[in-house]
Amino acid sequence: MYHDSNYRVSYGDTDQMGVVYYGNYMEFFERSRTEMLRDCGLPYSELEKRGWLLMVVEAQCKYRSPARYDDLLTFSSAVAEITRVRIKIVTRVLRDGELLAEGYVVLGAVDRNGRISRLDPEFVEICKKYSLEEQA
Amino acid sequence: MYHDSNYRVSYGDTDQMGVVYYGNYMEFFERSRTEMLRDCGLPYSELEKRGWLLMVVEAQCKYRSPARYDDLLTFSSAVAEITRVRIKIVTRVLRDGELLAEGYVVLGAVDRNGRISRLDPEFVEICKKYSLEEQA
Amino acid sequence: MYHDSNYRVSYGDTDQMGVVYYGNYMEFFERSRTEMLRDCGLPYSELEKRGWLLMVVEAQCKYRSPARYDDLLTFSSAVAEITRVRIKIVTRVLRDGELLAEGYVVLGAVDRNGRISRLDPEFVEICKKYSLEEQA
Amino acid sequence: MYHDSNYRVSYGDTDQMGVVYYGNYMEFFERSRTEMLRDCGLPYSELEKRGWLLMVVEAQCKYRSPARYDDLLTFSSAVAEITRVRIKIVTRVLRDGELLAEGYVVLGAVDRNGRISRLDPEFVEICKKYSLEEQA
Repeated sequence: MYHDSNYRVSYGDTDQMGVVYYGNYMEFFERSRTEMLRDCGLPYSELEKRGWLLMVVEAQCKYRSPARYDDLLTFSSAVAEITRVRIKIVTRVLRDGELLAEGYVVLGAVDRNGRISRLDPEFVEICKKYSLEEQA
Repeated sequence: MYHDSNYRVSYGDTDQMGVVYYGNYMEFFERSRTEMLRDCGLPYSELEKRGWLLMVVEAQCKYRSPARYDDLLTFSSAVAEITRVRIKIVTRVLRDGELLAEGYVVLGAVDRNGRISRLDPEFVEICKKYSLEEQA
Repeated sequence: MYHDSNYRVSYGDTDQMGVVYYGNYMEFFERSRTEMLRDCGLPYSELEKRGWLLMVVEAQCKYRSPARYDDLLTFSSAVAEITRVRIKIVTRVLRDGELLAEGYVVLGAVDRNGRISRLDPEFVEICKKYSLEEQA
Repeated sequence: MYHDSNYRVSYGDTDQMGVVYYGNYMEFFERSRTEMLRDCGLPYSELEKRGWLLMVVEAQCKYRSPARYDDLLTFSSAVAEITRVRIKIVTRVLRDGELLAEGYVVLGAVDRNGRISRLDPEFVEICKKYSLEEQA
């Protein structure tokens, strides 16, 4: 199951080609997974307060069609994979049902000192709500 | 005396009007004062390690002529005012000697807990190198 | 009368001081005035399609208290002044009624070639909905 | 052969984890390939003036170790693949020789109307200077 949220493209998101700058999709992905986690009942801000940080290990995006200024976009995210130390979240960017871009981010758990650690077990559990694996 | 540094405009700095997005000048100002402080012998990163943080209290920019993609800009900064708790830094953005924008930032000292504190006396002293007041 | 809209602070909006980077308030102001204009019935994207561009001439922000990651902010904008060639929009950033920052942006009308022109008369008219002057 | 350029991390590049925000590496990649193309004798700004636009089709980044505020980074780029319609550029981000991140961007040629077109033959030719394939 995918989690959907909305976002309005700002003027600052665009570049001189008249479309959203490609680098900004990474922030779109972040916004999307933040809302997904909030909907799971464990906001990322709360997770961080508990000392569980997530560091991006890998990110990818495929761009199909450009988003433009003032577009009302839909961000759609799901958990593609989750292990004891990593989580892979896929995100799609859509406008009126049309797929504009899609990609993924792999996040690894780190402690406050930046050392790799295990994911919070409660976090792993609640992420199942939007897990693609669970649907199998 | 003003401190000069250079900066190359990236594609990401532009917006769909084909010029540098107005909000990005604040980061330009930050880059400029960072290089000025480094030249004074006390990089801001070092100041922060000592526990002296500077929080922006006020910022202003007047835009005269747009900067464009790939422009090689000159940032020119000086200390307009410094008290025991605040410093006002003026910055100009130029391209080939032409003034594109100018503005200022007022910074206040805060400690690690975000409470207002006095500026590091060493910091106040070294800032005199680029003080406009000292030139009087 | 002020126009209110909401915004969720992203992780990308923050800096290493643990608060929203001061430069990002300029994009906040832009988002706020975009929503205000949409509510007036003339989205800025529509204005641009008609060939009426608005270039920022001056911007200022006073920072009172920092915004943080995941804060749900309220942006509150109104038209402080409008002449035949310029418009001054004031914007406040609030969190749960607390004023975090306030500032203004002065915009000047330019045509597609970047030359100063008069504001679209229809634009001037509809802006009265959120004009502070009209309230006198 | 790889092309090297330098970049100073700004405060605005960081996030509240105290490191460079992961999304900003896409702008780093852009800066790196811009300098590589300039060194080939055909700045991207010149290419755009001729009507040859490059649209990002795919981007990926693997993050190994975080970059921090005020780091002086080295961006290192090369052309991994070039066909008549697409170019794949790999970029590495290093600090004092240590690899912090690496990734690639695939760019497709589009005309001013956003339609897929062939790459400028002169562009293809000059890109050979930093082609990894040529070294075989």
